[in-house]
Amino acid sequence: MEEPSGLKERIKLSDVPKAVVSRLSLYLRELQNLLQEGRKTVSSTELGKRLGLTDAQVRKDIAYFGQFGYPGVGYRCAELIAEIRKILGTDRVWPCALVGCGHLGQALLGYRGFRQQGFDIRVGFDVDPKVIGTRLHGLEIHPLERIGPIFREMKIELAILTVPADQAQATARVLVDHGVRGILNFAPVTLNLPQHISVVGVDLAMELEQLAFAVERLGGD
Amino acid sequence: MEEPSGLKERIKLSDVPKAVVSRLSLYLRELQNLLQEGRKTVSSTELGKRLGLTDAQVRKDIAYFGQFGYPGVGYRCAELIAEIRKILGTDRVWPCALVGCGHLGQALLGYRGFRQQGFDIRVGFDVDPKVIGTRLHGLEIHPLERIGPIFREMKIELAILTVPADQAQATARVLVDHGVRGILNFAPVTLNLPQHISVVGVDLAMELEQLAFAVERLGGD
Repeated sequence: MEEPSGLKERIKLSDVPKAVVSRLSLYLRELQNLLQEGRKTVSSTELGKRLGLTDAQVRKDIAYFGQFGYPGVGYRCAELIAEIRKILGTDRVWPCALVGCGHLGQALLGYRGFRQQGFDIRVGFDVDPKVIGTRLHGLEIHPLERIGPIFREMKIELAILTVPADQAQATARVLVDHGVRGILNFAPVTLNLPQHISVVGVDLAMELEQLAFAVERLGGD
Repeated sequence: MEEPSGLKERIKLSDVPKAVVSRLSLYLRELQNLLQEGRKTVSSTELGKRLGLTDAQVRKDIAYFGQFGYPGVGYRCAELIAEIRKILGTDRVWPCALVGCGHLGQALLGYRGFRQQGFDIRVGFDVDPKVIGTRLHGLEIHPLERIGPIFREMKIELAILTVPADQAQATARVLVDHGVRGILNFAPVTLNLPQHISVVGVDLAMELEQLAFAVERLGGD
């Protein structure tokens, strides 16, 4: 795969701390907001201020990937957006499947943010005969057994897993057997999968726990 | 507020790195799984293995908060669960409001994980006359204007904000004006609020970006 053009020579992206990569998403979103506000450039100080980070932190994070700032100007929004998308791998469309079309699955189908950032949910799967064969948000819902031919036909690479917790591990196995490369897991369980499969877990109660900690421990400081 | 019993003397919880606090939630969830499997103790090695972390990392993270391990035994699951809940502040119930009862909001109302972890969604708010006055998952939905008396009556401390992006900032202001202490924000915008208000942002496309990066950059290594 081609490395991002501005990337420092020989830097291994796998060596970049995970926290830095997750802040890249924050920078990307804020730069997109700025661009929408009609802004062409932004300083590291302002970008940091909008995200509650110091300017030094912003510069250090971005410098992992190259020299994107201009003296006396700051960052050019459109340019840095393009570079960050290259680094994250979202400078192209990712074909995705939604697996589990209950309340949460249906909510995610209606979430426009995915498509804007390059994630194209092309198909839904469920085990409920009442849902199979219907269309949700314009998307056809198939039985889980049809995953093989459909994954091949639609070139699915990522799956969003929104099945009940007790079905998550078995369903994830089926996804892996049919060639999925990564899983966004909404079930509050840790999936046990082969090493080459990337998994990002979203446990919404964990986010609330972090909020409770912030309120109790940091808010009053 | 009382400090957790096992807490090291004089350690300031606000000095603990954010990444460590977010791993506390991971440890908590895995310990809860272990306990459900009937396990009474777990070594740092096994706990780490189940989460893809080294045993040294696990020990270091937990040691921030005190000495909870027993030589030759490891951690006692039930005890460490109780300690982590004390640290996170989830050893009590947090009264929450759901603000925005569209698809995502309704999905979250059906998500049982919140209650299990101490978050009690007591009331829902919306601006849509078709939704106001109805019950969703047993919960009454009120107009946003009634927030004042209802927040007081129900002692709401946290709000889960699931309104459209273009309404998020204004709605968050209303929540703050009525005494909310923390906001879990699902709108893909950065909220500009007074410093003493804690905000945790959940941008689901960001989670997918992290997955894309992992698949492209780390999966093949």
